[in-house]
Amino acid sequence: MYSFANDYSEGAHESILEEMTRTARRQTGCYGIDEYCDAARQAIQKDLQNPESAIHFLVGGSQTNMIVATLVLRPHQGMVSAASGHVNVHESGAIEGTGHKVLALPCDEQGKLTAAQVDEYIQGHYDDSTAEHMVQPGMVYISNPTENGTIYTKQELTELKAVCEKWNIPLYMDGARLGCALTSHANDLTMADLGKLTDIFYIGGTKMGALFGEALVINNPAYQADFRSIMKQRGGMLAKGKLLGIQFHQLFKDGLYYELAKYANDQARRLEQGIKALGYGFLVETPTNQIFPILPKKVLERLSGRYSWSFWCGIDAEHDAIRLCTSWATPAEMVEAFLADLAEAGK
Amino acid sequence: MYSFANDYSEGAHESILEEMTRTARRQTGCYGIDEYCDAARQAIQKDLQNPESAIHFLVGGSQTNMIVATLVLRPHQGMVSAASGHVNVHESGAIEGTGHKVLALPCDEQGKLTAAQVDEYIQGHYDDSTAEHMVQPGMVYISNPTENGTIYTKQELTELKAVCEKWNIPLYMDGARLGCALTSHANDLTMADLGKLTDIFYIGGTKMGALFGEALVINNPAYQADFRSIMKQRGGMLAKGKLLGIQFHQLFKDGLYYELAKYANDQARRLEQGIKALGYGFLVETPTNQIFPILPKKVLERLSGRYSWSFWCGIDAEHDAIRLCTSWATPAEMVEAFLADLAEAGK
Amino acid sequence: MYSFANDYSEGAHESILEEMTRTARRQTGCYGIDEYCDAARQAIQKDLQNPESAIHFLVGGSQTNMIVATLVLRPHQGMVSAASGHVNVHESGAIEGTGHKVLALPCDEQGKLTAAQVDEYIQGHYDDSTAEHMVQPGMVYISNPTENGTIYTKQELTELKAVCEKWNIPLYMDGARLGCALTSHANDLTMADLGKLTDIFYIGGTKMGALFGEALVINNPAYQADFRSIMKQRGGMLAKGKLLGIQFHQLFKDGLYYELAKYANDQARRLEQGIKALGYGFLVETPTNQIFPILPKKVLERLSGRYSWSFWCGIDAEHDAIRLCTSWATPAEMVEAFLADLAEAGK
Amino acid sequence: MYSFANDYSEGAHESILEEMTRTARRQTGCYGIDEYCDAARQAIQKDLQNPESAIHFLVGGSQTNMIVATLVLRPHQGMVSAASGHVNVHESGAIEGTGHKVLALPCDEQGKLTAAQVDEYIQGHYDDSTAEHMVQPGMVYISNPTENGTIYTKQELTELKAVCEKWNIPLYMDGARLGCALTSHANDLTMADLGKLTDIFYIGGTKMGALFGEALVINNPAYQADFRSIMKQRGGMLAKGKLLGIQFHQLFKDGLYYELAKYANDQARRLEQGIKALGYGFLVETPTNQIFPILPKKVLERLSGRYSWSFWCGIDAEHDAIRLCTSWATPAEMVEAFLADLAEAGK
Repeated sequence: MYSFANDYSEGAHESILEEMTRTARRQTGCYGIDEYCDAARQAIQKDLQNPESAIHFLVGGSQTNMIVATLVLRPHQGMVSAASGHVNVHESGAIEGTGHKVLALPCDEQGKLTAAQVDEYIQGHYDDSTAEHMVQPGMVYISNPTENGTIYTKQELTELKAVCEKWNIPLYMDGARLGCALTSHANDLTMADLGKLTDIFYIGGTKMGALFGEALVINNPAYQADFRSIMKQRGGMLAKGKLLGIQFHQLFKDGLYYELAKYANDQARRLEQGIKALGYGFLVETPTNQIFPILPKKVLERLSGRYSWSFWCGIDAEHDAIRLCTSWATPAEMVEAFLADLAEAGK
Repeated sequence: MYSFANDYSEGAHESILEEMTRTARRQTGCYGIDEYCDAARQAIQKDLQNPESAIHFLVGGSQTNMIVATLVLRPHQGMVSAASGHVNVHESGAIEGTGHKVLALPCDEQGKLTAAQVDEYIQGHYDDSTAEHMVQPGMVYISNPTENGTIYTKQELTELKAVCEKWNIPLYMDGARLGCALTSHANDLTMADLGKLTDIFYIGGTKMGALFGEALVINNPAYQADFRSIMKQRGGMLAKGKLLGIQFHQLFKDGLYYELAKYANDQARRLEQGIKALGYGFLVETPTNQIFPILPKKVLERLSGRYSWSFWCGIDAEHDAIRLCTSWATPAEMVEAFLADLAEAGK
Repeated sequence: MYSFANDYSEGAHESILEEMTRTARRQTGCYGIDEYCDAARQAIQKDLQNPESAIHFLVGGSQTNMIVATLVLRPHQGMVSAASGHVNVHESGAIEGTGHKVLALPCDEQGKLTAAQVDEYIQGHYDDSTAEHMVQPGMVYISNPTENGTIYTKQELTELKAVCEKWNIPLYMDGARLGCALTSHANDLTMADLGKLTDIFYIGGTKMGALFGEALVINNPAYQADFRSIMKQRGGMLAKGKLLGIQFHQLFKDGLYYELAKYANDQARRLEQGIKALGYGFLVETPTNQIFPILPKKVLERLSGRYSWSFWCGIDAEHDAIRLCTSWATPAEMVEAFLADLAEAGK
Repeated sequence: MYSFANDYSEGAHESILEEMTRTARRQTGCYGIDEYCDAARQAIQKDLQNPESAIHFLVGGSQTNMIVATLVLRPHQGMVSAASGHVNVHESGAIEGTGHKVLALPCDEQGKLTAAQVDEYIQGHYDDSTAEHMVQPGMVYISNPTENGTIYTKQELTELKAVCEKWNIPLYMDGARLGCALTSHANDLTMADLGKLTDIFYIGGTKMGALFGEALVINNPAYQADFRSIMKQRGGMLAKGKLLGIQFHQLFKDGLYYELAKYANDQARRLEQGIKALGYGFLVETPTNQIFPILPKKVLERLSGRYSWSFWCGIDAEHDAIRLCTSWATPAEMVEAFLADLAEAGK
């Protein structure tokens, strides 16, 4: 059975494992202070182009979000997020576990926050005579791509940043699948843009071809001072930090990160086009490695022994929307096979 | 320069990296539910021999301690620990970060808690008329080996467990370097003993030849129910959990874990004997991979360009105690070289 | 200017202050262990009729909710509440501050949760294949009266309790204005019913004629063990606990609590009938001491120098819904005056 | 039986209850924004003389300490305190409950921190190469009088403040019994000194003749911004805040606070002198309302039906140190009676 259920079912790209193997017995510094982490930081800075940014390496995405909330928010503040945001739904209450409310704003199938919406919400908070008794908006969380595979344009991000500056709170971007956003045909943002248009963002490795790891980029110096102690306190400081350095160095020294992400996007486009060609529609149009076709339950049943996917939501008595996810490792032949089997199953 | 500063400066044993490389593109389940984790659990169970135990895999030691505190303690309870315990000193307040006080009891250079001491402390708590206003002892934390490289005997552990049972609180053993305890010449405990004499313990991988990873063993069914949600909430659930499974499977399927630990111990014994032969004493006698020689500052200065170590404490105007730490990867020739250079420096 | 803005603008009923004055220099036990607290417990038990219940006295409502969340919830659990619930909106994130998410369910103008809605939500949680990554529903919070002044019927409460029992989680009722529920003409619940149909509830004093204070009733023995330590830890243990005992003894020894609540309800009914007689409608029909008339902005402006109230929500360009709140101390003549002035203003 | 066990066994001074009674039905603002709180602030400012200070009113001391920790400390920081400090021993882990370690420094029977000791401790923290893995000292907590009834001199406080400024962390003084410090014969500090020599301190009401209540004075503007939201979040915002305003206005408008404290001190001095005259010694010399005589157990047994006190510590097989505590309400005749009975019991 082949799985399109997610993009973290495999291990890591071979070049990463080769470098880990090559250096297996080499001694280095620990806890993220070592030559590999330095090299990784430099490689990322080639694209980031923001010498003021501090770059730290963490193991996982929920961990990173939890630590950023701890770093940024005052006790009475909350994190503004789309209702469908990962922090609001799929982290077992990690943000709340640090003492902070996720302030969930409604969103449509795109899963995006708009600048106008955020502005109106924060304005409403301060207009309320009982604001003092309500959780103060302390940061804005977005992810790019979103949970639903859509991406932010430079215009949208610029507007969101302006609203955050108006209210003097930071904009944080979860980039668990950032590579797939930056290499999407629909994208007009660069890494250097993110170095200016966000206060903090992270470059996801786990879902983009690394074994694990996320590179947290703190652009705003106001949030740089205490980071390592807080990372340690919340269990996020990897003893052999070099493992993160090695991975991000491999991913960024020659653009492998983007190659792998583009590859995943390409497979998704082929799947999307094939599915469209068979006459099926989609819950939402996405330009990245997650697609959301609406398929007859009958057809899904026929495919269910050979492929797996994520159930997304019911559409009507006879149709479901599912999520198909490609990765850096999805074989092109499996995409072909799936489309062929889907065509057969739909007959 | 060669470092004896710690046992996590290197990467991992080759067999681990080979298996990771071999399986780099293989799809499996995620979040610790996969065939490698299952195989690792079975391999550990061969030694553990406790079918009631639940085994979970986490990334790091401080993370594991933080999550166990969250799992076990009621809000008003604290964790009893030796004052020198890792949770009390070197985790940036991770336990307190989860809302719980570390109840630090005094200890000598051995760094151990005694059953009598714990019993007296808890008795004192309940005898105090203001107990209700004081943090209730909710668990006992020990590490084996301790921070100071000493180990618990079966007799000592049996007595500690009896005290914990008397007061109806769990005994938790931090086994960051457990292999070095179990393979010490002075040891009389087995993995199966730990499956009976502790409520929860962890088998350290990070310091014992893995890239990273700790295997948490929850023997007491009372603490098994909610574990995965709490692990997720605190950022401890690795997406590609198989990486932990692969490592612990490699370490335990044929006894590699013990081999690597014994190797580290052996190098420490050779260092210890060589240092003794040169006429130097030790802060504390230890039977594991950490040793604490007392050396003239003058001698240390002479060695300082070629070797590194951890400063432990000052002894007098002319002497310091240092920690030398060996690992699974310490080359025998570096031990020889160090001893030769030490002899030379002491002349 | 006279205020109908809330029911905690005044001090306390004279009988309470007389008893405090009479006993000002009398020595008693502290921290809620004294003869006045005992007497108050006995007086409440006359109505409660549940010898298994433990009764504790706290200072305020948000404090009580925060401490109950701490007491009841496991780290990964959240509190199910109507979106309009006080814990979700007006406690500055106190529940999240203890590490727990408020799981807000949509509600209409009644502000109530239904058993079917709670059942469906919890069912949905466990049906989701990612339940482990989502906050587990750990308790159900309702308030009676609700934030919107409506009340639960015995039938509704019985059904909610059954759903909670089905899922094995406790039902907690916030009774900040409980007296106004129990003495409402529309009510069919008794204090003894609450002793059976909730796991925990509190009898509000602050808004019902006391200086301050809430009597927390823990019916379910499973939640009784650690309460006093947790109350102390969260800053909720009043040194001179007798002040709470004195107040609840005065309120419950001869039914003063119900008298004061009924008085407040009666004033609200007179206001309501008077406003209806003038031809105005209401946002929601309520049978307690909060009413929500919809009035022309023009009329409100004319009244605004002489009376104050709470703005509730805009209705259309020319109308707002406001909240008028009566209390144990609202003079009947102020109700008359308001109605006369409203009639005049509406001309 | 008469109790010298503590100074919060009685109610409150009559003038407080008279004013509460007089204003029982008067409407005012809520949550600490009302004319009584304003008047109380002005009355305190007469002595404080620091127009930059913000003054807030809270219900209890542990609550105040918990909220100040929440306000001041970053997540990875701890509160430096004498080991005998109230926050370290008698608050059920309230500080840890907010996520912060109490960094307990050893102290003698005086229960005081010295500037040199704090400086050395903080210096040691930053000198340690693993500082990043250790809890960062984030504030210094002292109480005046201390838990042991001793007081700080102006010189000592000035030095402590200088050390705090050197390390750029705030000095916080718990003044649960502040009146007894300021009116002690041994005191050379004024309220105005505290407005300059501390960043934050509180003026205790509960133990000094109020029903309850502590006036928190935030001298340092850096900690003033978010206070009310944090106070609300932690359950510390009293709905009828005027009750606190009324009390502190009564206590400070004409110096009643100092009168009551001096009265308590005077009774303690008479007890102390009488006990000395009978030939008994003291565990520690104190100049406030707590005294710690060392008495034969045999004598204590004889007195035990007629008086109560707090057991402090055992001295030898035949002697215990006890704490005798006087209050604003201790009748002079009970002091006489105790001394006469002690003389008789010692025969």
